[in-house]
Amino acid sequence: MTDYSARAARVLGHIEELAAISEDAQGVTRTFGTEAFQQGRALVESWMRAAGLETRLDAIGNVRGRLVCPDPAAKTFVIGSHIDTVVNAGKYDGPLGVLLGLDLLEQLASQPAALPFHLELIAFSDEEGVRFHTTYLGSKVVAGSFDPSLLQRPDAHGHTLAEVLTAMGGRPEELAADALPPESWLGYFEMHIEQGPVLWEQPAPVALVTAIAGQRRVELTFRGMAGHAGTVPMRMRQDALTAAAEFVLAAEQFAQQHGQNLVATVGKLYLPQSASNVIPGEVVCSLDLRSPDETQLAAAYAQLQAQAAAIGQRRQVEVSWNLIQQTAPVACDAALNAELAQAIAEAGHEVISLVSGAGHDAVPISQVAPATMLFIRCYKGISHNPLENVELPDVAAALEVAERFLTRILHQHTPGSC
Amino acid sequence: MTDYSARAARVLGHIEELAAISEDAQGVTRTFGTEAFQQGRALVESWMRAAGLETRLDAIGNVRGRLVCPDPAAKTFVIGSHIDTVVNAGKYDGPLGVLLGLDLLEQLASQPAALPFHLELIAFSDEEGVRFHTTYLGSKVVAGSFDPSLLQRPDAHGHTLAEVLTAMGGRPEELAADALPPESWLGYFEMHIEQGPVLWEQPAPVALVTAIAGQRRVELTFRGMAGHAGTVPMRMRQDALTAAAEFVLAAEQFAQQHGQNLVATVGKLYLPQSASNVIPGEVVCSLDLRSPDETQLAAAYAQLQAQAAAIGQRRQVEVSWNLIQQTAPVACDAALNAELAQAIAEAGHEVISLVSGAGHDAVPISQVAPATMLFIRCYKGISHNPLENVELPDVAAALEVAERFLTRILHQHTPGSC
Repeated sequence: MTDYSARAARVLGHIEELAAISEDAQGVTRTFGTEAFQQGRALVESWMRAAGLETRLDAIGNVRGRLVCPDPAAKTFVIGSHIDTVVNAGKYDGPLGVLLGLDLLEQLASQPAALPFHLELIAFSDEEGVRFHTTYLGSKVVAGSFDPSLLQRPDAHGHTLAEVLTAMGGRPEELAADALPPESWLGYFEMHIEQGPVLWEQPAPVALVTAIAGQRRVELTFRGMAGHAGTVPMRMRQDALTAAAEFVLAAEQFAQQHGQNLVATVGKLYLPQSASNVIPGEVVCSLDLRSPDETQLAAAYAQLQAQAAAIGQRRQVEVSWNLIQQTAPVACDAALNAELAQAIAEAGHEVISLVSGAGHDAVPISQVAPATMLFIRCYKGISHNPLENVELPDVAAALEVAERFLTRILHQHTPGSC
Repeated sequence: MTDYSARAARVLGHIEELAAISEDAQGVTRTFGTEAFQQGRALVESWMRAAGLETRLDAIGNVRGRLVCPDPAAKTFVIGSHIDTVVNAGKYDGPLGVLLGLDLLEQLASQPAALPFHLELIAFSDEEGVRFHTTYLGSKVVAGSFDPSLLQRPDAHGHTLAEVLTAMGGRPEELAADALPPESWLGYFEMHIEQGPVLWEQPAPVALVTAIAGQRRVELTFRGMAGHAGTVPMRMRQDALTAAAEFVLAAEQFAQQHGQNLVATVGKLYLPQSASNVIPGEVVCSLDLRSPDETQLAAAYAQLQAQAAAIGQRRQVEVSWNLIQQTAPVACDAALNAELAQAIAEAGHEVISLVSGAGHDAVPISQVAPATMLFIRCYKGISHNPLENVELPDVAAALEVAERFLTRILHQHTPGSC
């Protein structure tokens, strides 16, 4: 019987080695295209090569490692995650999925049986979108949905994506050629820390992901009338902050009352001019709405917009509402999910289904291929933070589940298997 | 019959001349001790002298002009207001009261009748407290309640009050000698723009002030748990902002429900770290509570503190509550108010009583002398702003009311008058 603990310990050793490569000493910072990013990428490619994969750096800077099937016309099953990070990140968000995939493919590479399809491990170069304020650069190229106009987008120092890409050995003019054509995809599998507290509270080591929530991001401005905190009676006030506070609570209450998968968050709120003895005249805040159900998302959006307007009208406070960003929900592939559920059960764990509230590379890939994800418990759900942590038994559990899942897929496509 | 409109026009002419003396071109800025302050003060003293008053600059830099009574042992009735301003101020907050007083005393100076008491007009040197972050420097010296330890307090450039005072011709070591002893006070009268919207909405030109609200200022910190806006279910959140929003509304509702003279304002609210996709982990906000009734103020303070704690407990958000500042309410003198009410009625106006939500020089003076105030309507209640404005008919009304009031006081103290 395979010693998943020993393999998990090796995965975590890789995690530590990769995490040591950072732009600065605070947490881990490896944003797209930097010196640290390129060093980390080289290390991952060297591991892939040592594991027996055919490797290359593609035009957007992804590391791609393949185990090929004897039939060149066979389809490709991709295991992927990202190796870029946010600023002051943890060690696991992204790399864990790549290094678990590496372990799985290394096992297969060491076995004599021919593969029934190509297997590809991809370490995506940019998922977080920190440098160019646009997410999924790496996986969009592979999915064939990269927008070439992004090449002219500048970073904070005025360097365009095309320039940064060229400087790191990428090839802006060859991006389209690095897409996997839709007809060649067999499926996509991504392993990732949950980045939320559900498995921690449950407790359970892993969950299958049934959907990735769609998101709408709104900026609201409340404009009332500033005034002296001592001299304007309560009944004559047009307080922008009390209006905004009412909206903050309305958003919370709406999400609490409308299904467990809808979340609503006011994460930013500020008063452009304020003093303790001045009635607030203006408040600006954000609203982040997410749901795996597009109908629910649209309804929540419309109803909260109406509530904001009603609050403004009742309080004589002008409310402006601007949609800033919008992404549609993604449903994971039912057939792949059924296999993943079987694999979880075979490994002796309760089959827990979760919706991902955060975006992942599976989002663009799901547009062209059947995709699913496995979530792994992380410490208290903390992520995007140096405190991010994962326990060895959970990594071992994820490894066993993923290996059982991959074995099921391989058997399905092996002639004569039942 | 006196032409109050013509006299009011002359008062407004003085206002314009004084407002032209400013530290910068934006609005009016004449903070304590600056070159502009000293120039403005010299102009006011020259007007007092021309009006027939005996003038001097006292040790804290107040301009004091007297009309003396033949009996050196007679008491003194003081009319006062301030000539310092906030930064980027209007023209009327402070100077209007001084220049109305100047007009009244000029009329008396031109009459042959001997006064039954001394009359003193004081242009206080510092009421706003901008430079040394402590209010009422001028009137506290006259009231005998100046705290000598303030002399060592530095301004933003590190110059102590003692140094600034010496440089502007003041005398730090003689401050105590410039107090009017409690037994020599007959009364104190201050005219001031309302700085609030009640008379503007009413509409009415003037109001008598029955009390000056006491104030408590609190700083609150809400500490919850930051988290990913997409991955933490609503039921597992410890959102510091929704907790703070609930408190903002609780404070508003409490003040709305508990008497027309209680006001509660959250004027400052900020998130030390925030992003639209992060559940707020910490919120800091202010609370400004004011009431003319100490019992009501103390009850509101205690009940809102209890509500903040209850909100924190229910939401698992830690709430800290720090009292930053506290001033007691001041009741105006009932006998003087009765005379002022008569004067308002005689002048043909409705007698409106207001509570001052803002502090005034009458606060320290009321500790040693019977004091009252007359409020004058200002444009939309706007103050501490270059848009501050006052209409000529309202200034004429204030002049007539004040003259009738002063005449009533003089008659009360004139032997043989009824």
